[in-house]
Amino acid sequence: MKNHGKTSSMTQLLCRSIVESVGEGVTELVPGDHVLPVFTGECKDCAHCKSEESNLCDLLRINVDRGVMIGDGQSRFTINGKPIFHFVGTSTFSEYTVIHVGCLAKINPEAPLDKVCVLSCGISTGLGATLNVAKPKKGSTVAIFGLGAVGLAAMEGARMAGASRIIGVDLNPAKYEQAKKFGCTDFVNPKDHTKPVQEVLVEMTNGGVDRAVECTGHIDAMIAAFECVHDGWGVAVLVGVPHKEAVFKTYPMNFLNERTLKGTFFGNYKPRTDLPEVVEMYMRKELELEKFITHSVPFSQINTAFDLMLKGEGLRCIMRMDQ
Amino acid sequence: MKNHGKTSSMTQLLCRSIVESVGEGVTELVPGDHVLPVFTGECKDCAHCKSEESNLCDLLRINVDRGVMIGDGQSRFTINGKPIFHFVGTSTFSEYTVIHVGCLAKINPEAPLDKVCVLSCGISTGLGATLNVAKPKKGSTVAIFGLGAVGLAAMEGARMAGASRIIGVDLNPAKYEQAKKFGCTDFVNPKDHTKPVQEVLVEMTNGGVDRAVECTGHIDAMIAAFECVHDGWGVAVLVGVPHKEAVFKTYPMNFLNERTLKGTFFGNYKPRTDLPEVVEMYMRKELELEKFITHSVPFSQINTAFDLMLKGEGLRCIMRMDQ
Repeated sequence: MKNHGKTSSMTQLLCRSIVESVGEGVTELVPGDHVLPVFTGECKDCAHCKSEESNLCDLLRINVDRGVMIGDGQSRFTINGKPIFHFVGTSTFSEYTVIHVGCLAKINPEAPLDKVCVLSCGISTGLGATLNVAKPKKGSTVAIFGLGAVGLAAMEGARMAGASRIIGVDLNPAKYEQAKKFGCTDFVNPKDHTKPVQEVLVEMTNGGVDRAVECTGHIDAMIAAFECVHDGWGVAVLVGVPHKEAVFKTYPMNFLNERTLKGTFFGNYKPRTDLPEVVEMYMRKELELEKFITHSVPFSQINTAFDLMLKGEGLRCIMRMDQ
Repeated sequence: MKNHGKTSSMTQLLCRSIVESVGEGVTELVPGDHVLPVFTGECKDCAHCKSEESNLCDLLRINVDRGVMIGDGQSRFTINGKPIFHFVGTSTFSEYTVIHVGCLAKINPEAPLDKVCVLSCGISTGLGATLNVAKPKKGSTVAIFGLGAVGLAAMEGARMAGASRIIGVDLNPAKYEQAKKFGCTDFVNPKDHTKPVQEVLVEMTNGGVDRAVECTGHIDAMIAAFECVHDGWGVAVLVGVPHKEAVFKTYPMNFLNERTLKGTFFGNYKPRTDLPEVVEMYMRKELELEKFITHSVPFSQINTAFDLMLKGEGLRCIMRMDQ
């Protein structure tokens, strides 16, 4: 099975995706459908897809080494007769691409593709970490570690869930101003304190936050995110991908006092099943995506977009294929 | 507030508890009520009691050092005019005791007290760890680490939840036979394997168990219980109390692959709110308590009961006050 879709890009660079044609056997999509291409897929047939809880599809789970279509193991791209490998299942840095049907979420055709395209990766990752995994209750206190785009998406989830206090934690004090647009009520810079940041958070929240979401990938932040949640009901969620050799360490009593630690991948969203409803959240103006889009460039300026990403300037840069 | 109740005992030694009289201001109990005295209480007024998730009452949480009544800070026991301290809030090694109303669960008067008394401590701890925290689905695979009374109570919870495969893990092979009565379908002795037991469990379950409950308090078992659960949906629950200096260590990727680690205290049961329903589970024959009661002695033989506990013989010894 395959899909031809007009291109969208990955991660920092995103655009419009419309199905141009479908391969043999594909029945769920027709030319003209608006889709979100996703770097990880949903076959709907494996144990993970059949589980209500998992989105770690056995067939289409992210694989940066694959480089070919599942099925015939061939590439669909050539240049001067030589094959070019696919990129993370989507290959969206081109005007036309071929994507497995399991990696395409069919969405409301009225949704503006130059906005909802950001849901293909990090924004859904952060948003789902809060809405699907941390699940803060209305009125609760939530700490977000790391205020990049993923962290701010986690913060947007806390705002949408009705958290009454949202504490941003970041080493860069300049992040606070932007975070306020996402509901940030308090800012803590670990560098401003001599004691561990988890102790600072526990003291300022009378025993700990209700939920914490870790979006830096730094092991110390992971440990702090867990140790700053309240006993009895606190839940910490790990999102950031750590260094391979980093080890998570804590005293077991921190668990026995009824704290929970969970990890998530792509915000626990099943791409095909769940993303259409996330798009609807945007259409109903519950989810605000415009805040994440700080730049827009034509495809010819792709390197400018990469520079912005590498410098950490802005949040998401939309790449336009029509110019 | 106080309560006079006929005695029951703690931990390994348990008996019949009936309210003899109530103190000033006590309105929830009257003389003649059948109760379960519990080592940890529920004031119904603090943040923990008001949370749906926590049972770590701020006022009456277990405190082995207190030794007096909350309120006036006095003891209710004397011998030859000298005060004697209370014991873990219940002081049930005597024919009459005084217990804070918040530590007494009023139960169905038709329930046999010489059976349901085992719910005052470890049996509820293990049972609730599975039913309230791990929450295995019907047909799932559950691993229980440590097959003492608490572990077998956790196993009883897995049986009641309809787990189709229940794997007992213990260093003592003699435990398997008894565990079968609690639904144990497979037994793994870590000593029989050269590789870590978590790897053994992952291999025998095609990727990991759905739920694991750790009831030994050994740090290696805690780590193994977490690392043996399936990615995508696995949940491990820590019950056993560890050595103070033990440190829980694992690679963060084990969390990021959508595993959950939680700890529990007293099976997350709120004593007054929840134990009456646990008694009803027994009355409806869903929960089998007789299996836990392996010995019964008159109060005069209390030291025999302690010897049984210290030798690890049997599961629960009922102490009878009427002989």
